[in-house]
Amino acid sequence: MPPNRRVLGIDPGLTVTGFGVIDGDGVHATLIEAGTFRSNAKAPRHERLREIFDRVGALILQHQPADLAIEAHFVHRNVRSAMAIGEARAAAMLAAAVHHLDLYEYPPTTVKESVAGHGAAPKEQVQAMVMAHLGMTAAPDRLDASDALAVALTRLASLRYEALIAGRQ
Amino acid sequence: MPPNRRVLGIDPGLTVTGFGVIDGDGVHATLIEAGTFRSNAKAPRHERLREIFDRVGALILQHQPADLAIEAHFVHRNVRSAMAIGEARAAAMLAAAVHHLDLYEYPPTTVKESVAGHGAAPKEQVQAMVMAHLGMTAAPDRLDASDALAVALTRLASLRYEALIAGRQ
Repeated sequence: MPPNRRVLGIDPGLTVTGFGVIDGDGVHATLIEAGTFRSNAKAPRHERLREIFDRVGALILQHQPADLAIEAHFVHRNVRSAMAIGEARAAAMLAAAVHHLDLYEYPPTTVKESVAGHGAAPKEQVQAMVMAHLGMTAAPDRLDASDALAVALTRLASLRYEALIAGRQ
Repeated sequence: MPPNRRVLGIDPGLTVTGFGVIDGDGVHATLIEAGTFRSNAKAPRHERLREIFDRVGALILQHQPADLAIEAHFVHRNVRSAMAIGEARAAAMLAAAVHHLDLYEYPPTTVKESVAGHGAAPKEQVQAMVMAHLGMTAAPDRLDASDALAVALTRLASLRYEALIAGRQ
């Protein structure tokens, strides 16, 4: 079994960013903190990106995670919202780079499969499974927070899988 | 006429980023430096974004521009490349935010109109007009650099326009 590891999951958005910090070994996982923060919608775009960069950096300094996990290639309906998500993603990714964290990206279907057992699970089912995995009795205030916890749990599950593979060799 | 002002123009890309530094008052403009840099294609995505963030930050520290100018809402054919451009844009915008620069975004048609006289000018014509505005005898090594100079010139032109408007009041 892999040693206990702290993971920060981020669900980045220009307006609302979800975050979740968990500890675990791939079998048991514990919730440390989860929530969301908003950027100031009246601030210029680059200042909003800086808010995300600074908030993610503050979470890293506070919780000292080993890895940052984030969803990869979230497909959006239109090019403009894809660009906005790309910008918010970059702010979170840059915070990881500046603080020397390893960054892991998982496609949304992988996250859903890993947490809820199938890649087309609706968000509410993912949230219920996140709560079950972490023994939470109350749902996070927003789905962005449970999405962030889901991608963090996916990172822990992949570590367990790697340990299983290594054990067989 | 507005006072002399130094502007850094950036044409961000995950692989190649163009930059251009100019001094000017909206009538006369002088080339200080222009060029391109590449991120390491073999590095993880967040490290590539950090390279862009660090290189733009280094240009700011070296040249001490008053403003950073960048193209807004560059429309791309597909969502994946829009996200990659959004990420590279965010790295440049964050460098501006961290170094307390004002950031100005101009739509591509505004840049072309401002520099070449019409909003559908091809890239080669924009480059020729950039060279004429700055009295350059040799073209930059890549179009990314002249695109960066074009958006920087657009910033200076908008300052001149603002000064004209203010003078009339």
